[in-house]
Amino acid sequence: MNDYGIDIWSDDNFIIEDGLAKVNFDCKPSLISIVKDIRKQDFKGPLLLRFPHITKKQIHTLYDVFNASIKEYNYQGTFNAVFPLKVNQLPNFIHPLIHEGKKFNYGLEAGSKAELVIAMTYNNIGSPITVNGFKDKEMIHLGFIAKKMGHNITLIIEGLNELEMIVEVLKETKLECPNIGLRVRLHSGGSGLWAKSGGINSKFGLTSTEILEAYELMEECNIVDYLTMIHFHIGSAMNSIKPLKKALRESGHIYAELKNLGATNLKSINIGGGLAVEYNAYERTRFYSLSEFASDVIFTLKDIAKQKGVDEPNIFTESGRFISAASTVLITPVLELFSSEYELDQLKLKEKNPPLIQELFYLHRDMTKKTAYEYMHDSTDHMESLLTLFDLGYIDLQDRSNAEVLTHQIIKKAISFLEINDYGELKKLNESIQEKYLLNFSLFQSLPDYWGIDQEFPVMPLTHLDKNPTRSASLWDITCDSDGEIPFDSKKPLYLHDINLNEEDYFLGFFNVGAYQDTLGMKHNLFSHPTEVNVVFKDGEVVLEKILESQKIIDILEDIDYDTDDMKNILRKNLDPEIYKDLKKYLSENSYLKTIWSYYE
Amino acid sequence: MNDYGIDIWSDDNFIIEDGLAKVNFDCKPSLISIVKDIRKQDFKGPLLLRFPHITKKQIHTLYDVFNASIKEYNYQGTFNAVFPLKVNQLPNFIHPLIHEGKKFNYGLEAGSKAELVIAMTYNNIGSPITVNGFKDKEMIHLGFIAKKMGHNITLIIEGLNELEMIVEVLKETKLECPNIGLRVRLHSGGSGLWAKSGGINSKFGLTSTEILEAYELMEECNIVDYLTMIHFHIGSAMNSIKPLKKALRESGHIYAELKNLGATNLKSINIGGGLAVEYNAYERTRFYSLSEFASDVIFTLKDIAKQKGVDEPNIFTESGRFISAASTVLITPVLELFSSEYELDQLKLKEKNPPLIQELFYLHRDMTKKTAYEYMHDSTDHMESLLTLFDLGYIDLQDRSNAEVLTHQIIKKAISFLEINDYGELKKLNESIQEKYLLNFSLFQSLPDYWGIDQEFPVMPLTHLDKNPTRSASLWDITCDSDGEIPFDSKKPLYLHDINLNEEDYFLGFFNVGAYQDTLGMKHNLFSHPTEVNVVFKDGEVVLEKILESQKIIDILEDIDYDTDDMKNILRKNLDPEIYKDLKKYLSENSYLKTIWSYYE
Repeated sequence: MNDYGIDIWSDDNFIIEDGLAKVNFDCKPSLISIVKDIRKQDFKGPLLLRFPHITKKQIHTLYDVFNASIKEYNYQGTFNAVFPLKVNQLPNFIHPLIHEGKKFNYGLEAGSKAELVIAMTYNNIGSPITVNGFKDKEMIHLGFIAKKMGHNITLIIEGLNELEMIVEVLKETKLECPNIGLRVRLHSGGSGLWAKSGGINSKFGLTSTEILEAYELMEECNIVDYLTMIHFHIGSAMNSIKPLKKALRESGHIYAELKNLGATNLKSINIGGGLAVEYNAYERTRFYSLSEFASDVIFTLKDIAKQKGVDEPNIFTESGRFISAASTVLITPVLELFSSEYELDQLKLKEKNPPLIQELFYLHRDMTKKTAYEYMHDSTDHMESLLTLFDLGYIDLQDRSNAEVLTHQIIKKAISFLEINDYGELKKLNESIQEKYLLNFSLFQSLPDYWGIDQEFPVMPLTHLDKNPTRSASLWDITCDSDGEIPFDSKKPLYLHDINLNEEDYFLGFFNVGAYQDTLGMKHNLFSHPTEVNVVFKDGEVVLEKILESQKIIDILEDIDYDTDDMKNILRKNLDPEIYKDLKKYLSENSYLKTIWSYYE
Repeated sequence: MNDYGIDIWSDDNFIIEDGLAKVNFDCKPSLISIVKDIRKQDFKGPLLLRFPHITKKQIHTLYDVFNASIKEYNYQGTFNAVFPLKVNQLPNFIHPLIHEGKKFNYGLEAGSKAELVIAMTYNNIGSPITVNGFKDKEMIHLGFIAKKMGHNITLIIEGLNELEMIVEVLKETKLECPNIGLRVRLHSGGSGLWAKSGGINSKFGLTSTEILEAYELMEECNIVDYLTMIHFHIGSAMNSIKPLKKALRESGHIYAELKNLGATNLKSINIGGGLAVEYNAYERTRFYSLSEFASDVIFTLKDIAKQKGVDEPNIFTESGRFISAASTVLITPVLELFSSEYELDQLKLKEKNPPLIQELFYLHRDMTKKTAYEYMHDSTDHMESLLTLFDLGYIDLQDRSNAEVLTHQIIKKAISFLEINDYGELKKLNESIQEKYLLNFSLFQSLPDYWGIDQEFPVMPLTHLDKNPTRSASLWDITCDSDGEIPFDSKKPLYLHDINLNEEDYFLGFFNVGAYQDTLGMKHNLFSHPTEVNVVFKDGEVVLEKILESQKIIDILEDIDYDTDDMKNILRKNLDPEIYKDLKKYLSENSYLKTIWSYYE
């Protein structure tokens, strides 16, 4: 049996029971039952299932753990958090998050004007809004307008010019000034993939010299009272907690120094994001717990406050991945298994065969357990020679096919003689005899971080989990791009089941895809987002909400600015009405494969 | 002076004259003059300039070179080409391409249903359409409909099941069958970044055994007469021609074998894409010319046809990068220089300083040419110790700032004593004293291949090209993501000019971005596509056509399915009418920085 590492990555959100992947909540529905319900409504192609209860659980966990730590250490500051919109801006994710966050005063972080507009429209009044990233005067003015609406907003400045613009807007609009934060450039680098967002050469933040200049400028302009926060971010998805401790010491001292200079309303340290999510299905890569994380933050800040004789600061976090990743599962239907194995009945030997083919035939016929390894090696050597002979015109296509069939049969026979894992060599063979699973999805659209930064995601079939999977698998998407593949990796081998797709469906789930994947998606080959569904529970039953179907072909074309009326006219003009009717139906379907074809059936 | 490698990458499309980057065509306008014209019309933020004359030149070159080779070798087959839509599907690129391609019968390749709809609507009747990638029955039916419209269309099958579906559609619709192609899986791997799209474990194509099965199936179903093409693709952007020759030999023999089996209408070999584009600004990475490429193709195929006694095949190519890359230039305004250097007047020594600060002061004061290197080293050691002292609470923020200022001054002084390039060590220093240029664009949106596959693009300022650039530069985009950076690379150093942006604008051009970058763009932080313009020439003058402004904030929100009417209502309800008026104006502007702010000025 294979549990696909569920104990490592699922955090008890999903379990395996009766051979099925199930949601570990409420009535514990199987994922396959949810998928079938959705497909019954004629939504085909890939599906994205969002589970708001998991987001809710993560928000609760974050606050509970930090507040427990605060109590334990008798810490005088408060814990506060915002969700960084860039991690997932989609309304069907954000609306439930804002709803669930209300009781905690959970807020939003914005990094662009468009994100700030989302925050100022929907954030609960009183919950914090923080604004990071580079800003122009418009964006700063938007911050003033948000303040005017009653929002608890902090503009975190990335450079002195932003402070100058705040002063200008203040003078020119007569609106009340939002809170001001300073992003500090630490010399402590982070760990993890995004470590470069910390460190002295980081893209973001003020040096000590700039901090002092900023403080002077604020004094001159009489706005020191608006300085409420310092902020740092040492990198996303930290796998170790050590760099955080260093950064906390450094920023804690900057905080205390500014307090001692006279920044009386400076009361908060915003420690950014960085809480990692376990994406690995083979071994743990995150080496700390949330409570260690919280304790370290609180203990270190308490210590510095005592050393410097200042108030213990309020703590803000901006973890997005931790809140959102686990709540979303991508479901991809398997369209086809492209077996690269060959059956003996495909062998069509001639009366007279080239000597190497004859040799392959004997290798296959005469192999014993003792000679298995040697013969297998000989066969791949012969295969290479035969391919060369083909290229030079010495053997024909039938010979080449016979060579393929015989070589694969020899390898198969050798494997049955030898125990798998007997030889390292045999393991390597997994790569040449693997099964290729064609999945109805676009890797570029739905798992862009796999393409861009080699981010792995846990993958597991939804069914057959009580049977041993026997095929070493490589996964293909349906784009015309050779990068649209998750190849078999013998260090992290993925085994899947041998399924007859004519008899039953087989779906793979990709887990922990709720952070970034939805919003970074690329329309490679014009494949658009999957059909998205929020799965909620009411009175012990599953309710499917906010179904957003994968984009229609005609809408995709409209989106990339084709004149679709013109297109329809051209097509209509050039086709019989009956045929145009078929075509028009296809235009209003999504672009993934095997979506319909009920027409002639 | 620095020519930014223009002789290596520009293929004479752009030249430097009078210190300006100019378009080497017609009235030879400078890029800066075009940019100014567009910005005068109030389009701010990043710009994407498309030059259809360059696309036209590439199409002409491709046909001219191949046809010259055909003449030279007295080759009996014809040359044909299609543009793969996945490389750039946008209408403002595709419409001029189809217009220019007409005289050559230049066609289109489609890899998804949405792309096929574009091809069947706009492709010139008679010009070839090829259909690659995985297909469902709908997509095959669309191919039949395209044929019915009069298109010269070839469905290239990737698996036996597609052939079976063709037979089904043929029986069920009574429409005429399109041409059929077979994608063959070669054992010859490619070279270059995408080599894995060739080779025996490639995602695509039929093995020899499957080819024979396919042929049998076609014989059974009486459709051998529709088999017109075999197809292979050994990988995009080949940097060497050697793997192509191997693949040609292999596929040439498969072609001849099928002919000899009885495929009388099999007349074409489609060699896919693979023509590389020179992206490097430091040394050539493409080691062949187009005419070598063409000669090799024609010579090899002629040779095999002779050897096997079959007709010389027609040749199809599907090069997209070669046709489209050079035609597009991304222009990014520089928003800010974040100098990490410090002036001596920022030094605020106390009466009594920590010993190491005092030491730094002496190092700076007493440095001579002889001691420069040693003192510089000492200073960076001291700086590190001082940062640790700060973290432990032994020195204060002013001390830390003084340390920053003194260390940078020491490095600066050392550099002025030593000649740059004297020491390898000094070169490395470029990394710590580099200038950070903040660019008004999103790397994720406009250069996704830089993020995803480390694809470099030539970059050059539009002006000041008669002055020596003095600053080693790292480039930052405006996203809140530390990956949105092109860091300084001492092996491929980028130097830019020291500009006072209060006095003048400074723009960087990224060249050869016309392939894939437009269509793979991600909306990270909700930054949408740049403002796009087609630059054409009429009567010796520049004409700006088909201006497509960067998306408005409100439209971006609409696109990700926010209910924007609801948003406007909420915002209106919570704001005074005067302030809502300001806000509403911002909603209808694009999301990049410094776009307007004329309101209070």
